[in-house]
Amino acid sequence: MFPNPKKIFIQGKIHPEIQVGMREISLNDKEIPSLKIYDTGDSSQAKPIRHAWPKPAGGLTQRQAAQKGIVTPEMEFAAIREGVDPETVLNELAEGRAVLPANKKHPECEPMIIGSKFLVKINANIGNSALGSSIEEEVEKMAYAVSLGADTVMDLSTGKNIHETREAILRKCPVPIGTVPIYQALERAGGNPDNLSWEIFRDTLIEQAEQGVDYFTIHAGLLKNCIPLALKRTTGIVSRGGSLMACWMQTNKQENFLYTHFGEICEILREYDIAVSLGDGLRPGCIADANDEAQFAELKTLGELTKIAWDLGVQVLIEGPGHVPLNKIKENMDLQQKLCHGAPFYTLGPLVTDIAPGYDHITSGIGAAVIGMLGTAMLCYVTPKEHLGLPSKQDVRTGVITYKLAAHAADIAKGNPQALLRDKALSRARFDFRWEDQFALSLDPETARTFHDGASNAEFCSMCGPDFCAMRNTRKIGE
Amino acid sequence: MFPNPKKIFIQGKIHPEIQVGMREISLNDKEIPSLKIYDTGDSSQAKPIRHAWPKPAGGLTQRQAAQKGIVTPEMEFAAIREGVDPETVLNELAEGRAVLPANKKHPECEPMIIGSKFLVKINANIGNSALGSSIEEEVEKMAYAVSLGADTVMDLSTGKNIHETREAILRKCPVPIGTVPIYQALERAGGNPDNLSWEIFRDTLIEQAEQGVDYFTIHAGLLKNCIPLALKRTTGIVSRGGSLMACWMQTNKQENFLYTHFGEICEILREYDIAVSLGDGLRPGCIADANDEAQFAELKTLGELTKIAWDLGVQVLIEGPGHVPLNKIKENMDLQQKLCHGAPFYTLGPLVTDIAPGYDHITSGIGAAVIGMLGTAMLCYVTPKEHLGLPSKQDVRTGVITYKLAAHAADIAKGNPQALLRDKALSRARFDFRWEDQFALSLDPETARTFHDGASNAEFCSMCGPDFCAMRNTRKIGE
Repeated sequence: MFPNPKKIFIQGKIHPEIQVGMREISLNDKEIPSLKIYDTGDSSQAKPIRHAWPKPAGGLTQRQAAQKGIVTPEMEFAAIREGVDPETVLNELAEGRAVLPANKKHPECEPMIIGSKFLVKINANIGNSALGSSIEEEVEKMAYAVSLGADTVMDLSTGKNIHETREAILRKCPVPIGTVPIYQALERAGGNPDNLSWEIFRDTLIEQAEQGVDYFTIHAGLLKNCIPLALKRTTGIVSRGGSLMACWMQTNKQENFLYTHFGEICEILREYDIAVSLGDGLRPGCIADANDEAQFAELKTLGELTKIAWDLGVQVLIEGPGHVPLNKIKENMDLQQKLCHGAPFYTLGPLVTDIAPGYDHITSGIGAAVIGMLGTAMLCYVTPKEHLGLPSKQDVRTGVITYKLAAHAADIAKGNPQALLRDKALSRARFDFRWEDQFALSLDPETARTFHDGASNAEFCSMCGPDFCAMRNTRKIGE
Repeated sequence: MFPNPKKIFIQGKIHPEIQVGMREISLNDKEIPSLKIYDTGDSSQAKPIRHAWPKPAGGLTQRQAAQKGIVTPEMEFAAIREGVDPETVLNELAEGRAVLPANKKHPECEPMIIGSKFLVKINANIGNSALGSSIEEEVEKMAYAVSLGADTVMDLSTGKNIHETREAILRKCPVPIGTVPIYQALERAGGNPDNLSWEIFRDTLIEQAEQGVDYFTIHAGLLKNCIPLALKRTTGIVSRGGSLMACWMQTNKQENFLYTHFGEICEILREYDIAVSLGDGLRPGCIADANDEAQFAELKTLGELTKIAWDLGVQVLIEGPGHVPLNKIKENMDLQQKLCHGAPFYTLGPLVTDIAPGYDHITSGIGAAVIGMLGTAMLCYVTPKEHLGLPSKQDVRTGVITYKLAAHAADIAKGNPQALLRDKALSRARFDFRWEDQFALSLDPETARTFHDGASNAEFCSMCGPDFCAMRNTRKIGE
């Protein structure tokens, strides 16, 4: 994927057993001779690295360890990746403003941190559906997404071989894996949401926890009394998990069992140190439904659940919309921070218009960059196939790169020095016509090189030709 | 391009000779049975429609007519397209907050209005370079861009047959055409910027004015004393026109002749009613140079020139950046409005990061949507080939659709009722699984249909399959 990749390793100081991989890019630039880039390991070489690391006594979660002032190997690893000191990671974890998802049973995971004080992260969704894909294809999509820079991967399989697909993915995966356990619970319930139950869900949760899933999306905030609000909408409920729970509540005339059993769920999660990602079952599925009563009623409940999880030692992410017009994005961010006590926000897009199916990586990339700038910690990618079909490998590529650039734009807007330096290095290469340096610094070197139709040493490109190249002219003036 | 296009025409009331074309989309929806969409005519059927329309006495420009309270056919035409009354168009033109670019010698042009009170417009750049393309290819790109929804087209040809290419484009083009006359002036100067002169430029201007160009980008605001500021930058001058003038000033040790002769330029423009688009020769070409002293010094000069042009009856657009991080976009918009007395802003992007060559339609689409929301009147598209090569026809498509969605996202954020209705109609179709209605309402029906891999009457798609379709589940609950 990247030209002449040079992998370097930085050793831990507190924990010398950790070795944090980085990609080093050498440049023909006196001012910036090289750049170290945050880089996840190759999934084909995934190893259970965390087996050999010391664990905090008493089976503490990262949150609990942070609250006790213990810098775990995971915290130091994440701190080195971010270029911050371990205390920053520890403090943000202790306050709940960040999460470090790392199931004790996923030793292949290279620890990373998700919070508004750190680099904005992106998640790539993969997974089969009843209508397509195989285990091999899904493992390949995961590896591909990670190689392109996905920070976490969610396996959203709803088709055949859910358990085996997840197992194959986890054992190869150097980034945290998230799932939505209700999907597999539905399989166990024979495909009929009316037959779901707490017991089925609990067993599914434990099964997935044992495999090593690092965070679970759980739609515990969608309460029975919100269903009428959702039915008034233009597009109702557009969350798969949310709609399943709504079906179950409507038929069984009971409160959401994910809500009534939330304490028990957290106890299971604490055992493994799995983060809970509180799902937004009532996220708006269109511009007309954005920021409505249903959405914000659920968000308020997510805030209550955040406190319960925190008190039980569990790390918390809050999921967010959806479809939201540009002028209503800030209200989402502000309310989420207020109602959810500063827990990190993890949003899908948001998509800023409904009318561009086939281009929803872009409609959502716009919203993602803006909400990232405002403080969202992780952006869930959207591919060009959104609303239309299951993403292919090429769609995964387009989705990941679009979200990497959106997250990076947010980092730039937040003034992250690493991010600013990379832009500067690339622009210096551009001005000097160092095409290979420019490609090496770009998010997708292969595509950039393919699109460049000039010679690699030419002091212009076909867009302007030699006489009209402004950079070339500027250099002449300067000489 | 669009399925079952039904063209309807709305007759003028003040000027019954005008017939404003719209695309009517019929829907299987009781609440929204049909929708009229702003739609430019097919360029293969371009006719000199404006020949038969009355002209204001005394050869007034649209600005001058508006200031005298005269509603021209062009104003009424634009008002009908926007769904506003003609007085709104007249007032915005009179105050200089909008422009209606329509050279008296471009009768094929369907009048349209550019201003922050109206729908956000997009421009598509076409044109050959010394390294490629032909007259036929460029006419085809223009027709293609217009069919996809480009509101204006700039012919930026810098290669062979500049005059003939422009003539072929103009006679087929139902949207305003913009050019950067200094490009052809350079050709006349034998390709050497040092040999440029006011006389060569003036002759070029008149030649293009006679052909019917509707607006000219003129880099009159880049003054001699700004060159040292630009040379300190990471990427210097990235405007082609700006760099040519800087070369000329540096060699000839004289002030920019576009500045010293600006009054004479305006007198020529007034004759034809050509709008001046004041070029930003010092736009930042990278994140590191955004909002710097050079950029804002030029913007201040553009504000002075705006007053000169207005006083001479000439309509004015102000061009803007460039590369700007998300957190610095608002300052650009605010300063432009203040320094340029409310004249409409016409921006290239801005690109919110430098590190995604190959994806700069997206990095710039993000900035474009945001600056559009803040009040920018027209967005100049950027294609995936930006920084790398001359755009192909497919790149034109990607660029136009990306910018249509960015402009639409801005319209939505500004609360435009037409824009909101289209999103609602599409989302209602989505919820009802009316796939054909959904495609017909989308910005690129062909691509959306290609990506949809299910049956056209299926109540799900391959993304989730039938059991996991949230919309299907919601409908069940509602029943």
